[in-house]
Amino acid sequence: MKARAYATTAATQPLAPFTVDRRDVGPNDVLIEIIASGICHSDIHQARSEWGPAKYPMVPGHEIVGKVTQVGANVKRLKVGDMAGVGCMVDSCRTCHPCAHGDEQFCEKTPAWTYNGTEMDRTTPTYGGYSTHIVVTEHFVVKVPAGLDPFAAAPVLCAGVTTFSPLQEWGCKKGDQVAVVGLGGLGHMAVKLAAAMGAEVTLLSTSLSKQADAKRLGAANFELSTDKATFRKLARRFDLIIDTVSAEHDYNAYLNLLRPRGAMVVVGVPPKPSPVAAFSLIGGNRRLAGSSIGNMKQTQDVLDFCAQHQFGADVEVIKAGDINVAYERMVKNDVKYRFVIDAKTF
Amino acid sequence: MKARAYATTAATQPLAPFTVDRRDVGPNDVLIEIIASGICHSDIHQARSEWGPAKYPMVPGHEIVGKVTQVGANVKRLKVGDMAGVGCMVDSCRTCHPCAHGDEQFCEKTPAWTYNGTEMDRTTPTYGGYSTHIVVTEHFVVKVPAGLDPFAAAPVLCAGVTTFSPLQEWGCKKGDQVAVVGLGGLGHMAVKLAAAMGAEVTLLSTSLSKQADAKRLGAANFELSTDKATFRKLARRFDLIIDTVSAEHDYNAYLNLLRPRGAMVVVGVPPKPSPVAAFSLIGGNRRLAGSSIGNMKQTQDVLDFCAQHQFGADVEVIKAGDINVAYERMVKNDVKYRFVIDAKTF
Repeated sequence: MKARAYATTAATQPLAPFTVDRRDVGPNDVLIEIIASGICHSDIHQARSEWGPAKYPMVPGHEIVGKVTQVGANVKRLKVGDMAGVGCMVDSCRTCHPCAHGDEQFCEKTPAWTYNGTEMDRTTPTYGGYSTHIVVTEHFVVKVPAGLDPFAAAPVLCAGVTTFSPLQEWGCKKGDQVAVVGLGGLGHMAVKLAAAMGAEVTLLSTSLSKQADAKRLGAANFELSTDKATFRKLARRFDLIIDTVSAEHDYNAYLNLLRPRGAMVVVGVPPKPSPVAAFSLIGGNRRLAGSSIGNMKQTQDVLDFCAQHQFGADVEVIKAGDINVAYERMVKNDVKYRFVIDAKTF
Repeated sequence: MKARAYATTAATQPLAPFTVDRRDVGPNDVLIEIIASGICHSDIHQARSEWGPAKYPMVPGHEIVGKVTQVGANVKRLKVGDMAGVGCMVDSCRTCHPCAHGDEQFCEKTPAWTYNGTEMDRTTPTYGGYSTHIVVTEHFVVKVPAGLDPFAAAPVLCAGVTTFSPLQEWGCKKGDQVAVVGLGGLGHMAVKLAAAMGAEVTLLSTSLSKQADAKRLGAANFELSTDKATFRKLARRFDLIIDTVSAEHDYNAYLNLLRPRGAMVVVGVPPKPSPVAAFSLIGGNRRLAGSSIGNMKQTQDVLDFCAQHQFGADVEVIKAGDINVAYERMVKNDVKYRFVIDAKTF
């Protein structure tokens, strides 16, 4: 079927109306009529070919929520009328070691990314969520529980699972001391999720302007990372640090805020490698880890968790025609905290 | 009591005979007549004041095995005639969070290091194992199981526990793929321990001259880290990497050898911070961790493990008068794999 969409045709071109040919619904496929499509910062990086050569035309978008309108004969978990979500992947090999262990995002053959990639045939291009419809194989479609607003839920498919995954993986629990570094799209979800898990959350930011929001989102404490005294005061405080910052910063200073055997998990990508002193890790058996999105189970888990705790992302809903303006505002960090496109406007 | 010892009096001075006044045996104390005293590379760093200002006169040595010759009235776990060991610590505050959780090495008040430190009164200097006798409070004395040669057992108190601790903490088990980087005092223990735990061990070294020994010590595989092809061949291979190298090297290249959720644990301290790219960690949720010696339970565990598997360190036993020559040889990596001083010769 033909689906309306927005696409860019080159790194320097704005996004503009486009038509995508979605495949017929196969026996394992789910057709989704998209309601809400979040804008992730990685959409901008990829649309502008900043993460290696991009594939054009590109229809970005991997924070997708919509209504199931057709399912293939073998589809069991979803039915017509269900609210469904699609995140960063639409397929993987399903047989390699990580796939067999439920870590589709680490597929050794590389997953079929939702856009700027190919299906597993390595030929058919994938087109993402800035569109009215999408067809995805059942395994890569999650259920969006009743009670979640589709617009608030959309960013959970990427920003949500990206911060939920390390909190879950590193065992965040009631009473833990958790620091979140940076309050953007990822950071605001990290604060909400960690607080809902019962942790005492401290938001570390370079800007005092984030203090009120940090508290409103659930942070018990706010500290300025521009103040050296902060690092003395918080030394050895945290069980877990979720570092969402993509600007250059000193990992060693933050590692020193961990308790023995504490972990700092980076989900932001600074432009250059960060110098790490061995003593920053050896003192206190500290851990520096990375975390990449999440697997399909975690994607379902975070949606269920959000439904249970009755929250999604803080979003600003926009029309398709405003995508290019939204990109400019995001580059200036002028968004609280995620733009979500109303798919009726594609 | 007066104990014969070897000490250095300044960073540039050789070690020479010295007399230490050991305290009277208190109600919780154990007096050990030292049999074997290992030489750790950190002895050289500290004797030469390379790790911050050193305290002189300094009696180095924290790989100590000997016979219990007197115990205080409250001592329960050890009795006269037992073979006992002392490692890197001789006391800690016992009440802070890490101490209360059995991690004496992370004592928030700083443990009483076995030498180049002070007792917890922060006044009385500590003198280490290059000596005929030592008096240590029971909690910091471990039992050396019957059947372990005291000379082979001595390095287990530091080199052994330092490599055992990360293997235990990161769950090394039968069938795991474990890489050990560097074959020195720490590396040779890491190979033996990981192999005895049932892992398939790969030794990565800059020198082909280590190949035969690596195999003899239990490594199933040997690969040259100077060959770029090695890093392509071993990509995503390992569950765990124990990195014992203190020379500059590229952490990113090694992180890329980890499976998803694999961990690289550094126990060596390169001279400068190592640049770490966020993508090296984010791809595959990889972990870069440090590990510092081990707690008292782990120190006992590694000795019990070595006794059960009937091995200690590979050692060259020397006389006290040869310590300075041994230091020079160690600086040139000319030791297989640990010098141990015969304490009769102090």
